[in-house]
Amino acid sequence: MANTVYDVTTWTGATVSPYVDIGAVINQIIADIKTNQTTQTTRPGAVIYIPPGHYNLLTRVVIDVSFLQIKGSGHGFLSEAIRDGSSTGSWVETQPGASHIRVMNTDGHLEAFLVSRAGDPNVVGRLNSIEFKDFCLDGVTDSKPYSPGNSKIGISVQSDNDSFRVEGMGFVYLEHAVIIHGADAPYLTNNFIAECGNCIELTGASQVAKITNNFLISAWAGYSIYAENAEGPLITGNSILWAANITLSNSNRASISANKLLSNFPSMIAFLGSCAENLISANHFRRVYGDGTSTRFDDLFGLVHIEGSNNTLTGNLFSFNVPAANITPSGADPTIVLVRSGDSNYLASNNIVSNVTTKVVLDASSTATRIIYSAQSAQFNPYTTNYSFIATP
Amino acid sequence: MANTVYDVTTWTGATVSPYVDIGAVINQIIADIKTNQTTQTTRPGAVIYIPPGHYNLLTRVVIDVSFLQIKGSGHGFLSEAIRDGSSTGSWVETQPGASHIRVMNTDGHLEAFLVSRAGDPNVVGRLNSIEFKDFCLDGVTDSKPYSPGNSKIGISVQSDNDSFRVEGMGFVYLEHAVIIHGADAPYLTNNFIAECGNCIELTGASQVAKITNNFLISAWAGYSIYAENAEGPLITGNSILWAANITLSNSNRASISANKLLSNFPSMIAFLGSCAENLISANHFRRVYGDGTSTRFDDLFGLVHIEGSNNTLTGNLFSFNVPAANITPSGADPTIVLVRSGDSNYLASNNIVSNVTTKVVLDASSTATRIIYSAQSAQFNPYTTNYSFIATP
Amino acid sequence: MANTVYDVTTWTGATVSPYVDIGAVINQIIADIKTNQTTQTTRPGAVIYIPPGHYNLLTRVVIDVSFLQIKGSGHGFLSEAIRDGSSTGSWVETQPGASHIRVMNTDGHLEAFLVSRAGDPNVVGRLNSIEFKDFCLDGVTDSKPYSPGNSKIGISVQSDNDSFRVEGMGFVYLEHAVIIHGADAPYLTNNFIAECGNCIELTGASQVAKITNNFLISAWAGYSIYAENAEGPLITGNSILWAANITLSNSNRASISANKLLSNFPSMIAFLGSCAENLISANHFRRVYGDGTSTRFDDLFGLVHIEGSNNTLTGNLFSFNVPAANITPSGADPTIVLVRSGDSNYLASNNIVSNVTTKVVLDASSTATRIIYSAQSAQFNPYTTNYSFIATP
Repeated sequence: MANTVYDVTTWTGATVSPYVDIGAVINQIIADIKTNQTTQTTRPGAVIYIPPGHYNLLTRVVIDVSFLQIKGSGHGFLSEAIRDGSSTGSWVETQPGASHIRVMNTDGHLEAFLVSRAGDPNVVGRLNSIEFKDFCLDGVTDSKPYSPGNSKIGISVQSDNDSFRVEGMGFVYLEHAVIIHGADAPYLTNNFIAECGNCIELTGASQVAKITNNFLISAWAGYSIYAENAEGPLITGNSILWAANITLSNSNRASISANKLLSNFPSMIAFLGSCAENLISANHFRRVYGDGTSTRFDDLFGLVHIEGSNNTLTGNLFSFNVPAANITPSGADPTIVLVRSGDSNYLASNNIVSNVTTKVVLDASSTATRIIYSAQSAQFNPYTTNYSFIATP
Repeated sequence: MANTVYDVTTWTGATVSPYVDIGAVINQIIADIKTNQTTQTTRPGAVIYIPPGHYNLLTRVVIDVSFLQIKGSGHGFLSEAIRDGSSTGSWVETQPGASHIRVMNTDGHLEAFLVSRAGDPNVVGRLNSIEFKDFCLDGVTDSKPYSPGNSKIGISVQSDNDSFRVEGMGFVYLEHAVIIHGADAPYLTNNFIAECGNCIELTGASQVAKITNNFLISAWAGYSIYAENAEGPLITGNSILWAANITLSNSNRASISANKLLSNFPSMIAFLGSCAENLISANHFRRVYGDGTSTRFDDLFGLVHIEGSNNTLTGNLFSFNVPAANITPSGADPTIVLVRSGDSNYLASNNIVSNVTTKVVLDASSTATRIIYSAQSAQFNPYTTNYSFIATP
Repeated sequence: MANTVYDVTTWTGATVSPYVDIGAVINQIIADIKTNQTTQTTRPGAVIYIPPGHYNLLTRVVIDVSFLQIKGSGHGFLSEAIRDGSSTGSWVETQPGASHIRVMNTDGHLEAFLVSRAGDPNVVGRLNSIEFKDFCLDGVTDSKPYSPGNSKIGISVQSDNDSFRVEGMGFVYLEHAVIIHGADAPYLTNNFIAECGNCIELTGASQVAKITNNFLISAWAGYSIYAENAEGPLITGNSILWAANITLSNSNRASISANKLLSNFPSMIAFLGSCAENLISANHFRRVYGDGTSTRFDDLFGLVHIEGSNNTLTGNLFSFNVPAANITPSGADPTIVLVRSGDSNYLASNNIVSNVTTKVVLDASSTATRIIYSAQSAQFNPYTTNYSFIATP
């Protein structure tokens, strides 16, 4: 086998068992890669294989080489929230499994994996094409809503990076599953992120992130997807559940399409600050009540909350079903879409289904919003006269 | 190598060659896993690798452990229907290939793989995160329309399960490719299921199934996707061909978006019984004639057939091209969308293209359907006056 | 290990190091497969594994067996365009990596991989289920716009083929990344194709191609996706950048949905010749200026250019931002959608955002186009009176 292929269970260079501290073993492997790959044109990276097994991680892994692929044989999710609420004396398995890493840092750090390279990226180069595939990161113990919670972070990328990948992974019981700072063309697909405080956070600024075909299941205190200063993310084909919350801050030209969103709370998609020309199309929004409590947003915040201009909603279905007694403020008509500010936002061909009277609301500061076959007259509540409205019959 | 990594061709514990009966070998491996993993916190499962080769399966595999990944090196599809209709004397290959399992049970069972655990799931725990990846299940011989046919089942999951995965697989010549009972968050992606009677069946009840990015190619007697009592499935990015037929029975809040559907028959999507708040958006429907014969549905059934309320169709294209002589009942105007029952179904911005006059039809029992720029006046046929209609000009 | 599993670095049958000429090694492996697999029912193919490393390819690989899977451990992209414009003296890595093949043919051929079988496909059979997965094809040197450029081709499939797969691959600095002739149900997903002249070209004719969940980043002289005589391709969930250009020639019933498209040039989607019943839905189009120069199309060509009938645009967002001084012809109002010809094309619920006055244009030869809430009156420019127009208010 080439010396670029490592198995954490068989590599003879490790000074500790991977079952005792897989973090230390992977750090030693990375050191070995650097020993073997010594010039800027001879650094292809390596693949580190994690066979099925329960591994403890006591030491944070620090990745500062490009092209590293860390790969297991299964996402290994088991619902720890259900387990912790059940009588499990006769359960066959009570731990997540497959290639299963228990995040149990004893080194004072919060992250299981930190991707970071010292130096100015323009001088030392960005980190390219690092891949996490098909294993499970498990925070071991936590309690709802996980944020604040155990403070644990699955993967944190803190240096500028290009074409980073997270694919087929499982994450459970982490306050933050994946944080990426300064991402260019990151790619998160086919993952199962559940029972986490926050699923995916794009900090700093990002370019054309791709978040596709995932399960994202977060509780009510954090975010399914959070992005700040993002340009052009594509969020499509995801099932985003429990407290679905996609929040974009000062972000433009996102495309959020063909997703399934379910939440027990308002703010399923929020565009905060100045957000322009984002598209929300062909999504299914379902708002229910009962699994969790939160005063973070009231029902006037909107399932979709828009601050900014020229945002576009087309062809979505909103399904709202909350007992009248559980709506806040009491007696209010819940808001489906709130155009909080901005010019020329555009809604067309959206359908609203609800068990109580709900509203599409235009704030007084908004201008020239166009609402076309997206609300019946009784569902429309403008605090301005500067709009165009074609009522759904 | 860790003792959680098996190769069916090299494992020394087998009493039979995997080429003779890979089912018996995998059962013996599962028994070995159970021998090695003996407590509820030390059961990470294992990966079983199937190298490229032609394997016969004479004995049904029974999986009752979580976190098992069975993985090959290729989906290996070859069109057996084309082969069986061709002169193949000089063909280089006449069998499917890659990691190719011939389903040839001699044990009296119908399934190649049965996933089932004895006991009440609440007591013994659900089966979690079992994964089938990148191999081929081939029923060997069959004849159109495959249902009824050879009665063979590729994978049947009959115990409550969570985050089950089928990814990158090939299926051919099976009456039922995949059946999952009691599924929570199953994930079927990147598969090539073709020349089967039924592709994916979600029985019992299911939660938030994800069926994405597949080829699903079934004949006219079964289903591309069948689901009963389903909540919130996401069906997106699939190419569903030949006799595309997605049937949901008493299912709610499905999202069916961005798919390509082609059929030689009516009933491309049917919502039966009481189906509410399902979304059909941004799909391409193509109806043609000639590949197969069936009296299962006539042309009044609808390409889309809706029983239930608040279902929503937005932004779809319907392309109908059937010779007038082949329409049944003779002389009828074929139905594109039939709202068979229910209240407040919503159609907006759908386009219909057809070689003959086709109709959007509202049954007499339907109420408050809104049809907005989804049919020209001549394409609209209501048997009720309780609707709102904005004609496409 | 079964004799169907090869590792290019350990296979003892090779007469040359894979680092010197991986093409020659893979050809020798294919010859070995043919020696081992000698009848039409005993040809399952094989998997060829490429561990991380820098490999030169001097000799074109010719694949004429089905079910071959060539697989690496990472897509390995590094932006060579950024590298070539930077001071890299202190960069840690300056080459793409992971399983990295440098396409450096010395054999007079242009292709790294040619998939081709001698003989009439009806007589010798089609090539089935060949798979390229998770490695990097790198043309080494090139200059914008890469077409014409280094003339190199990553993968060329020139025989009729079925269920061919390209998945998780990286491509960089190739004039043509992937060309497939005569494709039936090809499947290109999860790839990172960047800094290439052309990304995906479907020549001859194709059936139901699936192009999903990719990054496609091409410069201004070629195509992101080109297809001729295509029936029913599904293009969804892709991020198509830089000079996004999907061109379909004489192609019908494509579904282009839920994509993110960004271009510095007109012609983001063009339907040329006679193209019918194609659907463009739920996509985000962004047109900017400045990265590259080209006179290939002027701003009257349209971001979307339609020749043919019954094509359908629903629920898309167009965002146009080009300085007035950079529009050609000078002083023109740029065209967002040009219906160049054809009957009964349909636009509904599309939103246009632009920094200058832009237009939806109907050519004099077009008939019965319906434009519904897809342009304001000032944005509509028909050269015919044969249309229906519902202005966006």
